[in-house]
Amino acid sequence: MTIIEKMKAIVGEKHVITDESDMQGFVVEWRDKFVGRARAVVQPKTTEEVAAVVKLCAETKTPLVPQAGNTSLVGGSIPFTGGDEIILSVARMNSVREIDRLNGTLTVDAGCILANLQTTAEENGFIFPLRIGSEGSCQIGGNISTNAGGVQVLHYGNTREQVLGLEVVLPDGQIWDGLTGLRKDNTGYDIKQLFIGAEGTLGIVTGAVVKMYPKPKYQQVALAAVPSVEAAIEFLSLARAMSGDQVTAIELISRYCVDMVMRHVPDFTDPMPARYDWHILVELSSSATPELKELMESILEAAFEKEIVLDAVVPASEAQQQHLWRLREEISAAQKPEGGSIKHDISVPVSRFADFIREADVAVGKIIPTFRTVVFGHIGDGNVHYNPMQPEDMGREEYLSHWEEVSRAVHDIAVSMRGSISAEHGIGRLKADDLVHYKPAIEIDLMRRIKKAFDPDGIMNPGKLLK
Amino acid sequence: MTIIEKMKAIVGEKHVITDESDMQGFVVEWRDKFVGRARAVVQPKTTEEVAAVVKLCAETKTPLVPQAGNTSLVGGSIPFTGGDEIILSVARMNSVREIDRLNGTLTVDAGCILANLQTTAEENGFIFPLRIGSEGSCQIGGNISTNAGGVQVLHYGNTREQVLGLEVVLPDGQIWDGLTGLRKDNTGYDIKQLFIGAEGTLGIVTGAVVKMYPKPKYQQVALAAVPSVEAAIEFLSLARAMSGDQVTAIELISRYCVDMVMRHVPDFTDPMPARYDWHILVELSSSATPELKELMESILEAAFEKEIVLDAVVPASEAQQQHLWRLREEISAAQKPEGGSIKHDISVPVSRFADFIREADVAVGKIIPTFRTVVFGHIGDGNVHYNPMQPEDMGREEYLSHWEEVSRAVHDIAVSMRGSISAEHGIGRLKADDLVHYKPAIEIDLMRRIKKAFDPDGIMNPGKLLK
Repeated sequence: MTIIEKMKAIVGEKHVITDESDMQGFVVEWRDKFVGRARAVVQPKTTEEVAAVVKLCAETKTPLVPQAGNTSLVGGSIPFTGGDEIILSVARMNSVREIDRLNGTLTVDAGCILANLQTTAEENGFIFPLRIGSEGSCQIGGNISTNAGGVQVLHYGNTREQVLGLEVVLPDGQIWDGLTGLRKDNTGYDIKQLFIGAEGTLGIVTGAVVKMYPKPKYQQVALAAVPSVEAAIEFLSLARAMSGDQVTAIELISRYCVDMVMRHVPDFTDPMPARYDWHILVELSSSATPELKELMESILEAAFEKEIVLDAVVPASEAQQQHLWRLREEISAAQKPEGGSIKHDISVPVSRFADFIREADVAVGKIIPTFRTVVFGHIGDGNVHYNPMQPEDMGREEYLSHWEEVSRAVHDIAVSMRGSISAEHGIGRLKADDLVHYKPAIEIDLMRRIKKAFDPDGIMNPGKLLK
Repeated sequence: MTIIEKMKAIVGEKHVITDESDMQGFVVEWRDKFVGRARAVVQPKTTEEVAAVVKLCAETKTPLVPQAGNTSLVGGSIPFTGGDEIILSVARMNSVREIDRLNGTLTVDAGCILANLQTTAEENGFIFPLRIGSEGSCQIGGNISTNAGGVQVLHYGNTREQVLGLEVVLPDGQIWDGLTGLRKDNTGYDIKQLFIGAEGTLGIVTGAVVKMYPKPKYQQVALAAVPSVEAAIEFLSLARAMSGDQVTAIELISRYCVDMVMRHVPDFTDPMPARYDWHILVELSSSATPELKELMESILEAAFEKEIVLDAVVPASEAQQQHLWRLREEISAAQKPEGGSIKHDISVPVSRFADFIREADVAVGKIIPTFRTVVFGHIGDGNVHYNPMQPEDMGREEYLSHWEEVSRAVHDIAVSMRGSISAEHGIGRLKADDLVHYKPAIEIDLMRRIKKAFDPDGIMNPGKLLK
């Protein structure tokens, strides 16, 4: 029997895809940025099936690419080694295994779509706080393997903070059942932490116990114009202190982002009465403070007096609040028709956030003086999507030919501030060279030691993260 | 030069202690439960000095015991190999290196006393939320190496959640400078997670970047009598939902704990008007809800109607609130004069908390029918200190001779519920055998692989955690 026949025997004939055209959805990145080839796509239904498939790969030293929703922004889920890899898709593993309301946890299969977890939590009076653009199609196993971030990290933390237990199929095909739902467990090295954010290079996450949180009863969103990025940071401190840490989101939006959204989203008008350079979208959430609108207004008033806010809109209706959120959510889509953009996913200490943007603008300006400032991000996390866009007087191709130069300049500044070149998107294939360039050698060495200890033959997602 | 002379050359003559009597404070556990011997106690002042000392140990394969405040409850900081170990004390490294108010972080030396960090944070308008009994003498390096818990984990998380960056001297003497203050950083394996809770077996934590939080303006404590442990769990759900997740602590206290405190703490009277079997101490904190007393009362009223609360005291004054906290805080000290107790540090999913206590009571009762129930703990974390105490009709020695049998029975029940045999105290020496007994072999194997990858010669804190 060939390995493919053996795989069919494990998962069933129709769950092993070998036809080139049927594999397209698995080997092509959603923005067509990365295109790979694979020997087959295997879709197990159970953890035991995953284990059997991996064991087979281990015995034959066949490289494996674990795949969940295939929404990676860095090519982490696309094969690259020329067609000898097997894609192991967890998409068919999509059951919520257990809902424990008293423990406030969900035990789920790796292939559950994030939006389904959000809904399941809400149906039980809770929330699952991970909120990202791809939530309708990304799967929790991928969120865990990339330690996904999103707009509510400030209050609830990254995916890492949501995970209490994991089930993982190791590179030799053994199943590690670490599906505990414990808030506290100090019995040795916290092994699950290694798999979170490992991008499938140490094993395949097949299940998880994740936290739910009480659903806030009240929410209030506001959009404020601020005189500078520094002012936005000061506003965050003020709002956190005045609200009793009930700021659940604070997003920075540059002028040009608003313009793009108005241009490309039908019927979208500027929510502000005048044109301003910088905006912040702020959300407060609470179950104990019904007067959130008053609270938001008093925070804005205090900020106005300190001259860190110039103007603000505090909508009363749910619909108007949603409208403000759309301004933030449509930025990514609105970028596309505007032309080429050189994307960065930077984090720095919050105290260096404004310095970073200022210095990056100068550095990029030296390369392309007329670039357009597309800057948005999660101020509270020090995470900025710094995506300088092609000038009106330059073609897309020419602009993008500067990617490496621009990127190096931007990353240099972030790293000089002890920042990160990948705050939430991961390394994948896109930044694998950058990782080696920017990480201290000692850290790369420690990572390699871990990789070797877990996957000595290097069959798990080769070429990603650690080249 | 002998190794001791070389160490003196590195850290200065007077910072290498070799006199037996001068070493007592370092080789004896604070409750006199563990007594060890060491070749010397070395007290470096800087990270570079630590690195030089470790390098010397690595070259000579000399075993090292890293020590911070020496407040371990499991013998983690005491040498055990018969006198050939060097104790490396970080106590002289006690500077706060940086306060970053906008980033909400402190960068600190490993030897900073926890209470000093709390004070430093408060002086800057923040809190550092780790709150444990030993806070006046334990040091942050030890808190990190044991992933310390405490009474505010429900709201703020364990020590792990407070750490953004680490500086570690590796077992070969190299310094890993991971002192970033980033909220988001997805550039590879999160190596710091391995050192947190590793009990000094993978390297020596010399510095850390930790989070601060806005200081809540208002706090309200209440003591309530509940009809059962189940009711206490239900109360927690109710209080979290009604308060908008502003419950910062919820502690369970058994009848006998109250009696002990009254007996041994001068002038301490029962805060409740009548005798009840089970109590919960609840704390709400907020900066946005000045009416916390009213909120607490309305939660208690709703609980009373659901018959999950029998009676309650909601003090108005700060002093009375402190008095309630003392009831909880004095339990450990009040246990001592009562005789022997067999201590456990269990966690289970919150939903199994009541089952655990019920089943453990039955199991212990089969061994010692007249034992006294000393049960207290952090309900919100599923963490219970289950410390059955010697009966009035049995001597201390005889009672403690049942330790192993009782402990095995209690741990069996916890593990059958997918609980932990060490929720917050760690493994150290005390539970090193239990760890191998209870952990799945595959997990012990993964731990050994990590240990070997980081410390191939096994010089770091030998005999602790992994035997």
